[in-house]
Amino acid sequence: MGEELKLLGAWANPFSRRVEIALKIKGVEYEYLDGDIIHNKSALLLEYNPVHKKMPVLVHNGKPIAESLMILEYIDETWKDNPILPQDPYKRAMARFWAKFLDEKCVPALWKYCWSLGEEQENAYEEACGVLKILEGELEDKKFFGGNNLGFVDITANSVGLWIVVIQEAGGFNILTPDKFPRLCKWAEEFRSCPVVKENLPPRDRLYALFKARFEKISGSKDAELASRH
Amino acid sequence: MGEELKLLGAWANPFSRRVEIALKIKGVEYEYLDGDIIHNKSALLLEYNPVHKKMPVLVHNGKPIAESLMILEYIDETWKDNPILPQDPYKRAMARFWAKFLDEKCVPALWKYCWSLGEEQENAYEEACGVLKILEGELEDKKFFGGNNLGFVDITANSVGLWIVVIQEAGGFNILTPDKFPRLCKWAEEFRSCPVVKENLPPRDRLYALFKARFEKISGSKDAELASRH
Repeated sequence: MGEELKLLGAWANPFSRRVEIALKIKGVEYEYLDGDIIHNKSALLLEYNPVHKKMPVLVHNGKPIAESLMILEYIDETWKDNPILPQDPYKRAMARFWAKFLDEKCVPALWKYCWSLGEEQENAYEEACGVLKILEGELEDKKFFGGNNLGFVDITANSVGLWIVVIQEAGGFNILTPDKFPRLCKWAEEFRSCPVVKENLPPRDRLYALFKARFEKISGSKDAELASRH
Repeated sequence: MGEELKLLGAWANPFSRRVEIALKIKGVEYEYLDGDIIHNKSALLLEYNPVHKKMPVLVHNGKPIAESLMILEYIDETWKDNPILPQDPYKRAMARFWAKFLDEKCVPALWKYCWSLGEEQENAYEEACGVLKILEGELEDKKFFGGNNLGFVDITANSVGLWIVVIQEAGGFNILTPDKFPRLCKWAEEFRSCPVVKENLPPRDRLYALFKARFEKISGSKDAELASRH
């Protein structure tokens, strides 16, 4: 029996793109099911990820795995060539630590900053800069978070490497800039120019259009809310 | 050079107790530093866990590892006898999934229920029961979450196995009861009677006294707040 490998993902979702990068690093063939164009998405998610009902889900020979970081570990343990995590236990612990930091502290703080307006956004600025500063410090003078080669933390940091860059452009604000975070900006460029990453990121113009439209919608409803108060 | 292994923990902290159980399963010698009685705790935490400044921290030959789940994985990868995680990649992914569920969904929902009062507590009841129901379903008819042997998920679920039981007793409410969650209650008993767990849990009467005092303090300030409104 041949292997059956399916990824249930979404094109603009950074968590789902992490899994694609990992599968491409391993050179594993898979079938991609885009959640945005599946008719009965909720039934599939209920079947494959009944606890969280979220994408991405990797389905290997009928068995579903949810949560992007768990999926990356599964991929690394199942297909051993081109390791994503380091081999040394201490380095592995550090990689997991920074990936968790990205998911639990960094991404939420950045999202909060990016998707709020006016005073709320100003208030979120300090925290967002704080997490970026910690990341900047961790990067030191390394090319990638893991050293010379793209690894677990770099893949997990994809929302810093592309999404934040496009969101700030579409929203007309600046947070991740070379004057404030020179190492992170250099890393983001390195990250995006890695062939395996480049081929697996969403088209930048399509992502820009998506976020531009979202900002227009948000500021539209904000205007309507303000107008209704007068 | 001999190995140097230190655990910076706190006696009543379930996250810290997870690490102790894991070290005892491995039969590894370590020095225990209790954060509650260390004079300059904040300086040590700043040195060992500058990002989160939280216990537990395991320090192995001078190198610190923070976050209890990362520490458990590190222990399992460093001392290979008596494995804590299963060997099969899919089973490992499932164990990590449930451990994450415990930390991100279960413990916060239970804590919210336990440490709120009146209407707020009533509102938190449904969510807390919901996460316990999901856990109850995952347990099926297994002795432990991992099957016949105590493993990663069981260790991570220690706050369900002891803390919730003592908290509900001290607070005079019922959520984890055999009529509602027969499998979880049976599991909690099995868990507490495992020798390696039994020897590494905080003394029940001391924990009860701690929580009883905390409840009295909370209800005291609630009474004062209500009185000040009249």
